[in-house]
Amino acid sequence: MRDGKKSPLRVAVAGLGTVGVGTIEILTRNRALISARAGRDIDIVAVSARDPGRDRGIDFSGMRWFSDAVAMAAAPDIDVVAELIGGSDGVALAVVETAIRHGRSVVTANKALLAHHADPLTRLARQHGAALAIEASVAGGIPIMKGLGGGLAANRFERVCGILNGTCNYILTQMRETGRDFAGVLAEAQALGYAEADPTLDIDGHDTAHKLALLAAVAFDMPVDLASVHVEGIRAISPLDIQYAEDLGYRIKLLGTAHRTPRGIEQRVHPTMVAKSNPLAHVDGVDNAVVVTGDAVGRVMFQGRGAGAGPTGSAVVADLIDLASGQAKQWFARTVDGLSAVSIAEHAGACYVRLMVRDEPGVLADMAAELRNERVSVEAMRQPRHALERVVPIVFTTHPSQEAALQRALGRIATLPSMVEPPQMIRIDA
Amino acid sequence: MRDGKKSPLRVAVAGLGTVGVGTIEILTRNRALISARAGRDIDIVAVSARDPGRDRGIDFSGMRWFSDAVAMAAAPDIDVVAELIGGSDGVALAVVETAIRHGRSVVTANKALLAHHADPLTRLARQHGAALAIEASVAGGIPIMKGLGGGLAANRFERVCGILNGTCNYILTQMRETGRDFAGVLAEAQALGYAEADPTLDIDGHDTAHKLALLAAVAFDMPVDLASVHVEGIRAISPLDIQYAEDLGYRIKLLGTAHRTPRGIEQRVHPTMVAKSNPLAHVDGVDNAVVVTGDAVGRVMFQGRGAGAGPTGSAVVADLIDLASGQAKQWFARTVDGLSAVSIAEHAGACYVRLMVRDEPGVLADMAAELRNERVSVEAMRQPRHALERVVPIVFTTHPSQEAALQRALGRIATLPSMVEPPQMIRIDA
Repeated sequence: MRDGKKSPLRVAVAGLGTVGVGTIEILTRNRALISARAGRDIDIVAVSARDPGRDRGIDFSGMRWFSDAVAMAAAPDIDVVAELIGGSDGVALAVVETAIRHGRSVVTANKALLAHHADPLTRLARQHGAALAIEASVAGGIPIMKGLGGGLAANRFERVCGILNGTCNYILTQMRETGRDFAGVLAEAQALGYAEADPTLDIDGHDTAHKLALLAAVAFDMPVDLASVHVEGIRAISPLDIQYAEDLGYRIKLLGTAHRTPRGIEQRVHPTMVAKSNPLAHVDGVDNAVVVTGDAVGRVMFQGRGAGAGPTGSAVVADLIDLASGQAKQWFARTVDGLSAVSIAEHAGACYVRLMVRDEPGVLADMAAELRNERVSVEAMRQPRHALERVVPIVFTTHPSQEAALQRALGRIATLPSMVEPPQMIRIDA
Repeated sequence: MRDGKKSPLRVAVAGLGTVGVGTIEILTRNRALISARAGRDIDIVAVSARDPGRDRGIDFSGMRWFSDAVAMAAAPDIDVVAELIGGSDGVALAVVETAIRHGRSVVTANKALLAHHADPLTRLARQHGAALAIEASVAGGIPIMKGLGGGLAANRFERVCGILNGTCNYILTQMRETGRDFAGVLAEAQALGYAEADPTLDIDGHDTAHKLALLAAVAFDMPVDLASVHVEGIRAISPLDIQYAEDLGYRIKLLGTAHRTPRGIEQRVHPTMVAKSNPLAHVDGVDNAVVVTGDAVGRVMFQGRGAGAGPTGSAVVADLIDLASGQAKQWFARTVDGLSAVSIAEHAGACYVRLMVRDEPGVLADMAAELRNERVSVEAMRQPRHALERVVPIVFTTHPSQEAALQRALGRIATLPSMVEPPQMIRIDA
């Protein structure tokens, strides 16, 4: 069945964590299938890891072991290096640069590295006739980059929007389903292995921002611009907000959104009130999903697992199959319409706001005056009665308003004497 | 920005219906974007249609007109023929064969043609060094074929299952939302242009079967085997069934399902009770969706528009970009594991059954005896009271049972004297 004549693609795997092991397992288990689809064998000829002695349940016979991943990237008889170490700089960057300078193609799952270095690395790869394959860096097993750059490439994209971090989505889903607060659900997620010991990168939105900057660069043919991504995480979401969202017909999701404006491409990562009529509202647990809006295709959604040995390994091996069959592509360092990222200072959109105030006369009037002064128009307001002694929530939604104006109004509302905590503001999806 | 040195890809468009016009519109509107992504210009140099005089709102200057599409496929100075005529044989087949014999690649949206001829056409293309690009043939704008054959190619697939016909999904959605019957909703869909004047191909499941046979061939690396697809349409679905499905926690969808069994690949198209926890249950209106289960990636869903000028044109142009950039691929006439399609006679699964009976003593006992004789085990039964005079529905669900045994039991139940109409059987998704 197989061609049998072509020489195998010789792969070196740098990093034997979850994804590295997953990649080797898939290549071993599905070897015949993968060879047939790629048109040639894909052989792992070398591996590197900091701790070579640890039992990983894998037969490493026939693979050269390196303790120095950079030395492996420069070693002879290697066609492709799979960089599965992680981290935006350091060893990972050195491995990728070394491989490329030796004319070897690179497959990477490293969103932090790419968010910081994708464009210069792509230019370096072009100089050296190497490819930089990146499917595994965004949304794990979901083939969203190949979707944007291939199956949907006829489209002028209007918007790319997704749930890109499974840890955050798991936490928000658990908060909604159990009514528990953020800290309690996070602790449980850490115990279950769904959240890292240091969860900052996930829950503060930075991991989502890395992925969003990559999605936006491919969708809008523009430079990767991580610095322009507005980033907010989910630490401040309270069970009250989740309950009010439900009452108002929304679900709270941490979305990464990039969309076209007259000024350029806005990139935002923040908790978002998603209408229940939007399919993203129903993507729960650790799943990721991306909704793409194109001028020809309309709205297309991709949903699946965004992390883990199998899903991310699936994307790494798909890229290896592409390289084996000569389907390499250049993803970054391309501009078409001269688009670039812009700040969200001029963003306009509807918002949900929750204030916690002492139940005193005049609070509402003071709040309304500040909103009126900034021309922020309230769509609906409610003052639900709670058992909290003398402290009551005021919840309102705004008509689409200038971000900066609303922020100024909330800044002054925060200083009103009746306020007992800073205002909570959550943007509504549109 | 563009390379500018490579010669343009010269495309001939055969057929100027919805998809042909949509394809030309996208190539015109997004010309700069598409040239940049493809690395060269994509020029439409020739078109053919039965009625050249009709105003299609397109500027055809610079394109040669052919009244004979087969002659166009053989004409000089053409690199690719886009076959957008339709039909499983006749002119469409002649155009594709002629183009391939002249060494030209073909892009086609024609699921009927491919379901009947994909394997021999692929072998012919291989002989002549041509490519046969097929993304637009399944699920319109959703890049599912490129997903299966590219982004998910590392996986051993367990199952591919989808809502593949927008007309049927629209009708079933309307029936659920309005409570109206099949005939009334169909007539309205025809008036709105969502259903053809002759809706047979759609509502009897044949269009879904065409697409399923193509999906299965790519997912399981096996021959396209339309004849082995079990096909049932949606004509027999009554508002009662839709109501009972809702009560039982299901939605009724026309699914095409191909999955691995110990004997081979089962391919089935039939109305299916889909649990509301399954994301396919929430894909409504004219949307299509495909859920793929792979050993590495787990479950991935793709959702979007399955037909229309924009979505299907998007897929046609994506294939042209692939051809322009040398990313052609061979989709059919491949076998890896020696898999092939099998009949569903040995299918085992749970079912919903609705009987309409005269309300006489002993009916239940007679029915139960027939089921027991075939070892079909009832999971739950209900006899909802209706206002229908002396005719009552009996609704039951079975535990997973042999298809053939259940059919035998229902065949005999149908002959019981109390039955007023043939039994309704709808398989439950599993």
